[in-house]
Amino acid sequence: MAKSPEEEHPQKAFGWAARDTSGVLSPFNFSRRATGDTDVTLKVLYCGICHSDLHCVKNDWGISVYPLVPGHEIVGIVTEVGCKVQKFKVGDKGGVGCMVGSCRSCHNCENHLENYCPKMILTYGAKYFDGTITYGGYSDTMVVDEHFLVRFPENFPLDAGAPLLCAGITVFSPLKYYGLNEPGMHLGVVGLGGLGHVAVKFAKGFGVKVTVISTSPNKKKEAIEHLGADSFLVSHDTQQMQAAMGTMDGIIDTVSAVHPIVPLLSLLKSHGKLVMVGAPDRPLELPVFPLIMGRKILGGSCFGGMKETQEMIDFAAKHDITADIELIPMDYVNKAMERLAKADVRYRFVIDIANTLTPA
Amino acid sequence: MAKSPEEEHPQKAFGWAARDTSGVLSPFNFSRRATGDTDVTLKVLYCGICHSDLHCVKNDWGISVYPLVPGHEIVGIVTEVGCKVQKFKVGDKGGVGCMVGSCRSCHNCENHLENYCPKMILTYGAKYFDGTITYGGYSDTMVVDEHFLVRFPENFPLDAGAPLLCAGITVFSPLKYYGLNEPGMHLGVVGLGGLGHVAVKFAKGFGVKVTVISTSPNKKKEAIEHLGADSFLVSHDTQQMQAAMGTMDGIIDTVSAVHPIVPLLSLLKSHGKLVMVGAPDRPLELPVFPLIMGRKILGGSCFGGMKETQEMIDFAAKHDITADIELIPMDYVNKAMERLAKADVRYRFVIDIANTLTPA
Repeated sequence: MAKSPEEEHPQKAFGWAARDTSGVLSPFNFSRRATGDTDVTLKVLYCGICHSDLHCVKNDWGISVYPLVPGHEIVGIVTEVGCKVQKFKVGDKGGVGCMVGSCRSCHNCENHLENYCPKMILTYGAKYFDGTITYGGYSDTMVVDEHFLVRFPENFPLDAGAPLLCAGITVFSPLKYYGLNEPGMHLGVVGLGGLGHVAVKFAKGFGVKVTVISTSPNKKKEAIEHLGADSFLVSHDTQQMQAAMGTMDGIIDTVSAVHPIVPLLSLLKSHGKLVMVGAPDRPLELPVFPLIMGRKILGGSCFGGMKETQEMIDFAAKHDITADIELIPMDYVNKAMERLAKADVRYRFVIDIANTLTPA
Repeated sequence: MAKSPEEEHPQKAFGWAARDTSGVLSPFNFSRRATGDTDVTLKVLYCGICHSDLHCVKNDWGISVYPLVPGHEIVGIVTEVGCKVQKFKVGDKGGVGCMVGSCRSCHNCENHLENYCPKMILTYGAKYFDGTITYGGYSDTMVVDEHFLVRFPENFPLDAGAPLLCAGITVFSPLKYYGLNEPGMHLGVVGLGGLGHVAVKFAKGFGVKVTVISTSPNKKKEAIEHLGADSFLVSHDTQQMQAAMGTMDGIIDTVSAVHPIVPLLSLLKSHGKLVMVGAPDRPLELPVFPLIMGRKILGGSCFGGMKETQEMIDFAAKHDITADIELIPMDYVNKAMERLAKADVRYRFVIDIANTLTPA
């Protein structure tokens, strides 16, 4: 018989877990594996709340395994290193993002695209190499192979930097892959939430002109004055949208609700690229004519590889890019999830794990 | 009052036109403009019948202007050149494809992408610079600016070469733009009709491994033995499709009927590209997850610019690539349209204009 989560590994761990599709999180005693030869053990300091955590605690995608400890925007301090660890030492600060393992030998892995490895292992709710289930960062400790830990530069904010480990790389990677990071280009960012607001910041960091496209006219002031966007379009304002037709080199679409994409394709110049990073759970309607007539592209992107994640963190540190966060105590998490469901956060909740996660 | 098609220009012309949405073609006296300074006048020898001709004669896309003389796969011999013509002389053989004009000064035009110029003028049924309507190649003569005429190399077949002016460039251009022309790559070609069969030939010319994907199992022998495809998948054979999952670098989808694209996305490796060149008239259902998880792209492409069209013809001549055609007399055109609607042609009808178009 399989051992209980509390007994299966030698290192004691404590966190908050969802137990069923209610999605309600509550204190949870479990365990972490011993620090392996290439592993690093972290004391978790901060963990961001990603919108996908909300989907997972409620099993919206049908793949959740309970008890489920969410969290894949994890920043911590190294407390132990395995005998073969080369890049980290005790006391270093590092971050764990969406994945904690991959095959390390396939074509994607060899090309620093572990995130597209068919055997990629998600940070929580997935089966690790040893057959046990992975648990995320709503917890006091993490054990991770050093390959899947990125270094946080000295003085880079640990709390406001945490969300970059998912939200940041998810927008940084497609900006580069789809060639939308050339100074002077014009980028649209659809949706001004956790992903959208850092997309604006990274694009500005690249020297790109940014237009935020949103359903909420009241986000205009914030987008322009606070986040540095160059302009703002209300997506249901036909006149505004028409005036902006054919002006954009690319669009990063962060919206995970079903929404019309033809108006977005219309905003693109010929050869423009619409990149989806939010995943609506039902199919979109796609007319093919607009793609053909302007040789336009609809593409996707799924966070990023470890090398690029480190590059993203270093770029963020150099350009003073962090997420705008609301730091919360652990026991506020269920309330935070409720507010997140209503998009009532500017723009990312981060749990102050080290100071507020107290064993029962 | 506007002059009649027969009187508006000085050069007499004769062809076959559709008069209404019945799509039935019948003899038609009209006229062509005088050979302008940069114009070339051609005696038309051959004209291919493109599937879009069928849509246009019946006004399926709602943009047709009657009387409508179709035809944009036109090969002819130069009979007169304007005083400023530099590239052609009387007696040269040349071809006219899908367009006869563009602004020549926009960003796309400057980059040899006249086909994406917002002011691009289609070869038939469009308004030319002088305000008159353009007429296509189901006619005895053409007058065209030399910029929109491509040279046919000596000894390159004029009849079987004609369809390359639309079908050929429509598949050649995306193979290059989407980087699917590297030797050793694996390409899927969906639909084995006018476009699909030349896609197979060009891909083989590039040294690419080709798998034809079709609803008709009885096309397998032909695809492999005659066209040189490496393998064949029956699209409704779940077992075959599953076995081929994740094996293709790209797919050229030539089917213009509404069809499921998720199975096609599944055939792609991560970072693979599905390129639509057939345009279904209703929207497709597009789930976003497959795009995100594999960083896959859905793109379009619309024929090609003049420089690339010349490159395509030269490549075809070098690699002995022509269309497989059924040469027909002009008065067979209505029957040919009926057969085309049933996909009863291997693989392109070409009208023997010079020998069979006789004035009433």
